[in-house]
Parts: sequence; C-alpha cells; structure tokens
Amino acid sequence: MNKRMVLRTLGVVLRILSLLLVLPIITAICYGEKRELFSFACVAAGSFFAGSLLLIFIKTKNTVIYAKEGFAITAFTWIIMAAVGALPFVISGVIPSYVDAFFETVSGFTTTGSSILESLKLDDLYQTSKSMLLWRSFTHWVGGMGVLVFVMAIIPNFTDRSIHIMRAEMPGPVIGKLLPKAKSTSRILYVIYIALTLLQMVLLCAGNMPLFDSIVLSFGTAGTGGFAVTSSGIGGYSPYCQWVIAVFMFVFGVNFNLYFLVLIRRVRTAVKSSELWCYIAIAAVSTTIITANIMTKIPEMKTFSEAVRHAFFQVGTIMSTTGYATADFDAWPNLSKAVLFLLMFCGGCAGSTAGGLKVSRVIMLFKAVAKEIRQMIFPRSVSKVRFEGKPVDDSIIRSVSSYFVIYMICLLGAFLLIAFEPFDFETNVSAVVTCFNNVGPGFSAVGPMANFASYTDFSKIVLSFAMLLGRLEIFPLIVIFSPHSWIKKNNK
Amino acid sequence: MNKRMVLRTLGVVLRILSLLLVLPIITAICYGEKRELFSFACVAAGSFFAGSLLLIFIKTKNTVIYAKEGFAITAFTWIIMAAVGALPFVISGVIPSYVDAFFETVSGFTTTGSSILESLKLDDLYQTSKSMLLWRSFTHWVGGMGVLVFVMAIIPNFTDRSIHIMRAEMPGPVIGKLLPKAKSTSRILYVIYIALTLLQMVLLCAGNMPLFDSIVLSFGTAGTGGFAVTSSGIGGYSPYCQWVIAVFMFVFGVNFNLYFLVLIRRVRTAVKSSELWCYIAIAAVSTTIITANIMTKIPEMKTFSEAVRHAFFQVGTIMSTTGYATADFDAWPNLSKAVLFLLMFCGGCAGSTAGGLKVSRVIMLFKAVAKEIRQMIFPRSVSKVRFEGKPVDDSIIRSVSSYFVIYMICLLGAFLLIAFEPFDFETNVSAVVTCFNNVGPGFSAVGPMANFASYTDFSKIVLSFAMLLGRLEIFPLIVIFSPHSWIKKNNK
Repeated sequence: MNKRMVLRTLGVVLRILSLLLVLPIITAICYGEKRELFSFACVAAGSFFAGSLLLIFIKTKNTVIYAKEGFAITAFTWIIMAAVGALPFVISGVIPSYVDAFFETVSGFTTTGSSILESLKLDDLYQTSKSMLLWRSFTHWVGGMGVLVFVMAIIPNFTDRSIHIMRAEMPGPVIGKLLPKAKSTSRILYVIYIALTLLQMVLLCAGNMPLFDSIVLSFGTAGTGGFAVTSSGIGGYSPYCQWVIAVFMFVFGVNFNLYFLVLIRRVRTAVKSSELWCYIAIAAVSTTIITANIMTKIPEMKTFSEAVRHAFFQVGTIMSTTGYATADFDAWPNLSKAVLFLLMFCGGCAGSTAGGLKVSRVIMLFKAVAKEIRQMIFPRSVSKVRFEGKPVDDSIIRSVSSYFVIYMICLLGAFLLIAFEPFDFETNVSAVVTCFNNVGPGFSAVGPMANFASYTDFSKIVLSFAMLLGRLEIFPLIVIFSPHSWIKKNNK
Repeated sequence: MNKRMVLRTLGVVLRILSLLLVLPIITAICYGEKRELFSFACVAAGSFFAGSLLLIFIKTKNTVIYAKEGFAITAFTWIIMAAVGALPFVISGVIPSYVDAFFETVSGFTTTGSSILESLKLDDLYQTSKSMLLWRSFTHWVGGMGVLVFVMAIIPNFTDRSIHIMRAEMPGPVIGKLLPKAKSTSRILYVIYIALTLLQMVLLCAGNMPLFDSIVLSFGTAGTGGFAVTSSGIGGYSPYCQWVIAVFMFVFGVNFNLYFLVLIRRVRTAVKSSELWCYIAIAAVSTTIITANIMTKIPEMKTFSEAVRHAFFQVGTIMSTTGYATADFDAWPNLSKAVLFLLMFCGGCAGSTAGGLKVSRVIMLFKAVAKEIRQMIFPRSVSKVRFEGKPVDDSIIRSVSSYFVIYMICLLGAFLLIAFEPFDFETNVSAVVTCFNNVGPGFSAVGPMANFASYTDFSKIVLSFAMLLGRLEIFPLIVIFSPHSWIKKNNK
C-alpha cells in the first residue's frame, strides 16, 4: 500500500472540504447567522490547516496508485469528509450530539437523506439556521457525483492512474470512460451536473418557490439525497413544483454517460441504451400499479391527476433513491408499499447519482440466471450474456453476482446488529434497507413523516456505516478493514 | 423431451402413492374411523387405476432420460403427489376446501409444516380422525427423503440414467454419489432414514409418550416437517421428550452421506466434514445468543436449563427447518427473533431432509465473496475456492451464486404476489420466507401458535408453489414452465 500517496490525497481532500465550506459561510453572512458563521469558519480554517500540514510534511516521489490504493483513498476520504463535515452542527449547537451529527452528515454525503432531526426542530432551523440547512443539502450535491471525482476535475496532474479512484467511487458494475483521460471525464460529468442543477433551480423559481428553498431542494434532487427544508416535505409546494422535482429526480437517476452522448450529438446511441428503457419501464409499471391501488383504496386521492402525481413522485423518489415525499406512503395500502420496498433494492441507473443495486446490475443478474437455466435444460448449448448489444465478460458477471451476495450478507448483518432495538420488524428491516440503498425514508417508525432520532447511538453508527457501504458499493470499506491490504508491502 | 418416459414414470408414482395410502388405511381400521377409511380407500384405488392405465397405454423403448427429463419428472411427480394426496382430506370432509387441502398436502410433502388447521380443529381431529393426522405427518416422512428416491430404491432397473432424477430431487449444490449406482445409493439412504426414525420412536415411547404421538412426531421430525398433533405443539410433552425431538431434528439436518461413512467405518472422513462443523458452530452460537437473550428478558424462563432447552429446541427446529415449537418464539425479544429469522435462510446441511439455502451453499457463497475481495486487493493473485479439502470447480461456484440470485428473486416475487393481503409486513415477509425455506411457522399472524387459515385462496396457492420451489430448489419447476423445454424435440 502506497501509504504516503493515500495521506497526501487526504490532505488535498481536507483542503477541498474547507473550500466547500465557503458556500455555507456566505449563506451565514447573508442571513446574519453569527453562531453558524463562527462554527463554519472554525471548521474551514482547521480543515485547511490540517490538510496543509499533511501536504507539507508528507512527501513522495511515487505517485502511482493501484486498485488497492484507489479503494483505500475512497474509503478514508468519505469517512473523513463525514467526520469533519459533522463538526459545524456540533460546534453551533444545532445538533448537540456528535453521533447524531455524524449520522446526519454521512446521510448527507452518501445522498441517503435519512435524518435524526425531528419535525419541530426542522421547522425551527428553517427560521433561524438557514446556512445549516444549506450545508446539509450541499453535502448531498457534493456526495452525489463524488468528492474525488471533484478533486480529479480541478487538480491538475493529480496522479497517473486516477482511473482507479474513479472506479472505486463511481457506482455501477462497469465504468464507462467517456474520454481517454479520467480527468476530462470527471470535468464533463461535473459540467453536466452543474447545468442540470441550475436548470432545476430556475424552473423551481419560475414556479414561485422561494429562492433559498429552490437552491436547497435542487442540491438535494441533483445528489438524489432527500433532506427536506420543512417538516411538510415536498407536500407543501404547488403541484407544478412537485412535478418539476419528480421529473428531475428521475432525470438524475439516469446514467450521465447518456447525457454526454446527447451533448456530442450521438443521440441515437443514447436512445438505444437498454438500461434506460428498463429504468423507464420499471417506473411506468410501478406508477401504474400504485396509481390504481391508491385511487381505489385512499379516499383523499380524489382525482386521477392527483393520484398519478403522488404515485409518480413516490416511484421517482424511491427509484432514484432521493427520499423526498409528497405523501405519507407509509399509510398507503400494502401492495403499494411492497412495490416501493422492492424499488428500494433496484435503485437508479449505473453512473448516475442514485443508489441501490442499479438497474444494470439487476438486468445482468436476471440475464445470468436465464443463461444458467438455459444451460440446465440444454447442457450442450453455449451462450454468452449480452448487455447493451455487447457480450459481457464472465468476470463481470461473476463480480456482479458476488456483489449481490455480499450486498445481501451486509444487509442481513446490519439487520442483526440493530435487532436489539425495541422497534417492530418493519421498522428495523426498512431502516437497514433504506440506509443501505441510500434512499432515506423507510416504513413504520422510520416512515416518510418520521425520523431516526429514536435509535440508540450504537444503531446510528451501524446505520451510518450501512449508508457508506451502500454508497461506496462495499469493497472500499472492506479493503481498509482487511489486514491483507496492509501486511504485504508493495504487493500490487 | 422424452414425454412418454415422463408419463410412464408418473404412472409408477401414482401406483406408489396408492401403496403409501395403505398405512393410513390400516390406521383408520385400527381406530375404527369409517369415513376416513372410505376416503383413503377411494383415493388409493383411483390412484392405482390411473397409474396402471398410464403404464398400460403408454409404451416406449427409449428409457434414456437426460437432465431435462429428470427435472420434468421431479416437478410433475411432486405436483401430482400433492394434488392427489389432498383428496382424502376433501372427500372425508376434514378439510372441506380443496385449496386448503392442497396447501396442507404440499406443506406436508415439502416438509414445510405450515398448516391451515386452526387449534380447535386440530385438537378435534386428534380425538376423531387419527388416520388423517397420521397421513399428514407421513407425507413429511415420504417427502423428506424424496418420492423418486423411494421409487428408485424399490423398482428394479428403473432407468439407465436415474442419477438425473436424483440430482433434480435431492437438495444441495452437489450430489455425492455414495455408490456407483444411483439405485444402491437410494437404498442405503432409505435404510439409514428408516433406522433413525425407528430409533426416535423407541426413545419417545421410552419417555412415556403415547405410541400414536411418537410415531406421528417421529415421521415429522425425520422429514424435518413439523405438523403437530395437538394445539400445544411440543410444549405439552416432558422435557425429556423435548430433548429427544430437539436432538433428532438436529440429527436429520446433517448430511446423510456422513452417516453412510460412519456405517462403513470411515468415521475419520465423516468427522472432517467442514459443513458439519459449520452447522454445529452456527447452532452453538445461535443457541448461546438466544439463551442469554431470553433468560434476561423473559420472566417465565426461570432456570438456565429451561432457557437452554427452549433456545436449543427453537434453533434446531428452525435450522433443520422442521417447525415444531415448545415456546411461542414470536413473543421473544427482537434479537432472538432476528437470529431465528436469519437461520431460516441458512437451513440444514446439503443431502439432509432439511430445507433452506443449506449450510454448504452458505459456506461456498462466503468463500466465493472472500475470493472476489482478495482478487480485488491483489489483482495478480490466482486462487481457487476450496471446500471439504478439495478445490471447487468454477461452474459450481457460478451455479451456487445463480441459485442465490434466483432464490432471492423468487422470494421477492412471492412477497409481491401476496402483498395485497391486509396483514402486516412481518407476517407477509415471514410467511414467504418460512414457506420458501420449508420451515413452517413464521412470525406475527403466522407465528408458531397461529396458522395460515386467514390467507386468501390465491395467496395459499402462491405459498404452495413457494414451498414446492423451495423443496425442489427452483429449477425443476422452471423447466416445466419454460416453453424451451417443450419446443425443440430431441435436443438434449
């Protein structure tokens, strides 16, 4: 393990973090929030100082990194970002407990959106601590595309092999390099990301949403995070704004490579994507089932258009793993809840800001199983799994299956660890599933109108790591906790 | 597909079924149950007649069967056994609804033990219809080792390639052929099976259990089924009897190959089995956790020995997927329930009468994942997964992973199909999991002291197929429902 290079990268990350804190600092100045200004400034200064120390005292000529270092850098970066990013909440007294603040910040960066803030407290913050709410949602935006992708986008000649970092941080079974250099790829991704976010802000403002709300909610939508600004969630805004957010949640759940293809006018290639069509089909079928289900069973859903809006919004929020809500879907009939529960596992497309297993993995899993069955019926037949028009390498199929196995093991393990909590089965299961898939709300006591405040500190830490495991797709965290990674020196 | 051979085999199966019905007929005569006698006799005669018709009118020279035919024979055999085996319940009026009777018989043959009989009704039958209770538990015994294994054991020169049938019917990732001929293997398996069942009957009688109860409960234990004879389950018997049943449940969850090895005095090879040690370790750890948990939280567990007995019994019942209960574990604390829930997935050893994923599959899944992680940290390393001292072929690893994926897909699919039921999340999830893994009781409204009577007919049929999918390990049923199996003629 090239430890010096890992430490130097963390130095860069700490400096970047102080840069990111400038946005809430400006907000605090605008709204005259002194206590908040003080805490953000302290953390920004401390973070910059610590990062500089690392960069000054740790030198190395060997800037080459391999897969192992890529994983380690990613895992440590995310843990440190959350650990330091939580400090302003504690220093300002907005969230007095550090464990709570850590949970909230992990939930932010991993774009989960599960919160420990109670409704009253949230409405209170909306009046008094706007900069804190902005920071909370800004972590979604930063975490959505990835911290290290950002580092690579702005630091010149960061390392020769930054593709290993990109691979470790970007979600999905395979990384499509848009351009030969990882650096150019990450720049393009951020340009698309920023453009779409700005577009959403403009459209929300056009719908008479307050500027602050539209900025914060756009950050949350873009990162597919889901922290709300008031206790009424998205239910309090006009149907127009709800539709805008619903559509953008759906848009941010699409593979960003497709937007790039559209940009360079290869629209036809983009439209051929089977993952995209599958994503649309799943959303369409789920919306239809839920619309029919709630129209017949929920008396408040008076008109068809209202039912469709709520159904599509909730499908979009769960599939893109955002977690905003316009309705208390925990009170919906069992069938709708079951559909939403299954969508939590599915998630959005690979290469988007969404969480979950990813549609492409789900497709490959189904195809691999179909192949296995074919082979069982006709043992002599030879067939390859094909995806997006190309045959898929066996090693990718194997790693997708392994990912699914380890994903289920982690889910069940986390469920066992929080099992001593006095909550019902539905609460605990959905808490683990929603955190692991970076969705946000669960059912029952952690439903869309509830929060995670009543869990014990131990469970909050377990769920925080579940969120990190889900966002980083498990392997980076395993690498840093595996003694093998550290014992053998220079073994690549 | 060699359809004639499939039909001829079903003819044999129908004749065997009429033979199996002799046992409840004798019981009905002994207890003077006329109505029951009449219905069993009718079904036995009809079944023998139909089987003979098939054997007389369908002739074939081509007795060769391949994997595909093996799967088809297995799937049809199990469906027909359950469909015909349910008739005595309906004709005698004991279970008036045919769907209920089908559910009960599938639950019997698949050794699940989930019942639609309400407590009062069960106690009533214990007084008036002993032969029905015997038939119910006898289906466990027959289903445990497998109907077709029985056919192969007794019919001379059944087919040249009966290993394909054995492979389709016996649970577990790989079939260990004890002897070169499938026929001899199946005979030895049945000898061990009968000997252990008789031993348990004797030991239970020695504990002053009524003869009828000891026979019926031994059938249920041997098949790891779990139909009780009275509404109090096993809780009404002496601690000695509870220990005997607990130990035998555990014993029937062990790979029968090991008993064969002991028989031929290769004890050392048997003791080396890593699956066995893993099975013991999981049981020991779970029993310890649950004992500690219930001793501190449940006031009724006064002494240590009582807590250990209940904990070990419940761990044994769930791991071996039997489903007897000495305590209402649905009322136990969350941690114990979570442990039991996870054990439902694990199940017993391959090559036993238990259900679930099987310990060997779980081991292989963990090892495959560990290998994948190693390869990720050291991309140049080359390593093989080893199991029971031998390297495991990649194709087996692949099929184990595929099995797990398709297993989860089926579980989630079944959950979605019964989601319209008005029951809570815990009830529906545990109903699917317990049926699929052939355990028997679930939690909440389908807990050990409750039953499946309140589900709708549609859900009962879904759950019946879940039980069949679980017992036959999915593939046989997929083969008969796949058009590919039927279209291409003579494609092997």
